[in-house]
Amino acid sequence: MIFAKVIGTIVSTQKDENLKGKKLLLCKEVTHDGKPLNTYHVAVDAVQAGEGNFVLLTYGSSSRMTEVTKDAPIDAVVSAIIDDVEIDGRYK
Amino acid sequence: MIFAKVIGTIVSTQKDENLKGKKLLLCKEVTHDGKPLNTYHVAVDAVQAGEGNFVLLTYGSSSRMTEVTKDAPIDAVVSAIIDDVEIDGRYK
Amino acid sequence: MIFAKVIGTIVSTQKDENLKGKKLLLCKEVTHDGKPLNTYHVAVDAVQAGEGNFVLLTYGSSSRMTEVTKDAPIDAVVSAIIDDVEIDGRYK
Amino acid sequence: MIFAKVIGTIVSTQKDENLKGKKLLLCKEVTHDGKPLNTYHVAVDAVQAGEGNFVLLTYGSSSRMTEVTKDAPIDAVVSAIIDDVEIDGRYK
Amino acid sequence: MIFAKVIGTIVSTQKDENLKGKKLLLCKEVTHDGKPLNTYHVAVDAVQAGEGNFVLLTYGSSSRMTEVTKDAPIDAVVSAIIDDVEIDGRYK
Repeated sequence: MIFAKVIGTIVSTQKDENLKGKKLLLCKEVTHDGKPLNTYHVAVDAVQAGEGNFVLLTYGSSSRMTEVTKDAPIDAVVSAIIDDVEIDGRYK
Repeated sequence: MIFAKVIGTIVSTQKDENLKGKKLLLCKEVTHDGKPLNTYHVAVDAVQAGEGNFVLLTYGSSSRMTEVTKDAPIDAVVSAIIDDVEIDGRYK
Repeated sequence: MIFAKVIGTIVSTQKDENLKGKKLLLCKEVTHDGKPLNTYHVAVDAVQAGEGNFVLLTYGSSSRMTEVTKDAPIDAVVSAIIDDVEIDGRYK
Repeated sequence: MIFAKVIGTIVSTQKDENLKGKKLLLCKEVTHDGKPLNTYHVAVDAVQAGEGNFVLLTYGSSSRMTEVTKDAPIDAVVSAIIDDVEIDGRYK
Repeated sequence: MIFAKVIGTIVSTQKDENLKGKKLLLCKEVTHDGKPLNTYHVAVDAVQAGEGNFVLLTYGSSSRMTEVTKDAPIDAVVSAIIDDVEIDGRYK
């Protein structure tokens, strides 16, 4: 899984049946200490994440392993909101 | 999922049985605000997309999760046509 | 899917049971207008492709979705021979 | 699989149901002789690994092939703790 | 699939149940004409490969499609030992 920050949402009316009712989030990849990288991903929200949240993205077939995303044509899911990253006993 | 713009179609007569009847679109990857990148992908159309459309591409096994693409040897599908990308409450 | 040109074949006697009888093609990745890139892939042939053909490669689990490749330990298949790529109503 | 060193843990309370109870490790990719690379991955622990361990990461759908990770929305697992890498009969 | 040369083995006692009894090979990626690249992969051996062998690596879920690797948390397998690569009717 990788780190990202939710920065927006995707608006789409003409989409596959299995994408309907799912929240599509625009996520900007970040480092483990929150520094922005220059890569963007669109991921389905499975944890009620919102703009500004520091989150975990799960990729590939594994992104379909949530109640929200099963059997849908999606390849990335926001699977967790991150509270802290602990390194050497300290919180970053 | 990533952003792309549909720029053409692939013509092929000699292809796998499970690809027959599917529309193969040439897609150019773009940024979330529509700027062209230098990467091209061939994806099957699942949402009646056409040339010029700003779309979402789904990759890997998840690209087979639509009525059009199930059980076919395809690794990318156009899963949605994007109307807008909303960042900080504004449409880009 | 991506574009490639078939440039050779792989000869192997000691291989997994499920690879036996399959034609392993050496493919050089090309752009949509046929310009060679510097990346090579080995793919199983599912469409009777031969050296010099301009083809489509399908990756990952989806490469097992043909009669030839099902249940085999392969991660890339030649799924179509390309006749033309049409952009803006013109053939390239 | 690739080489990594466990350097921290991820703290998250709001996460997908199937992630609950799983230890999320921050791993820094390293070369086969242990030199740090500049890539980070979050992986679920399946072998009681701890900080400082030199480990093997398994990716994609295969990361769900352990008792700990099956059916969970995870795309990377710590599948082994490495004792040694033997090259030319010598341990590195 | 990609080309690699087997250059070593991984020694690990603490590993996932489904990895037990499997030979973990350190493989260095090479070009189709055997020139070494600077990328390393750990793959499970399915064809009795040994150090020095020029082999084919299969990735992802497809790497589990051998008798040796099925249901194991592995994302790369040595699926064939390469005898020759034939380009333009000549062996390289």
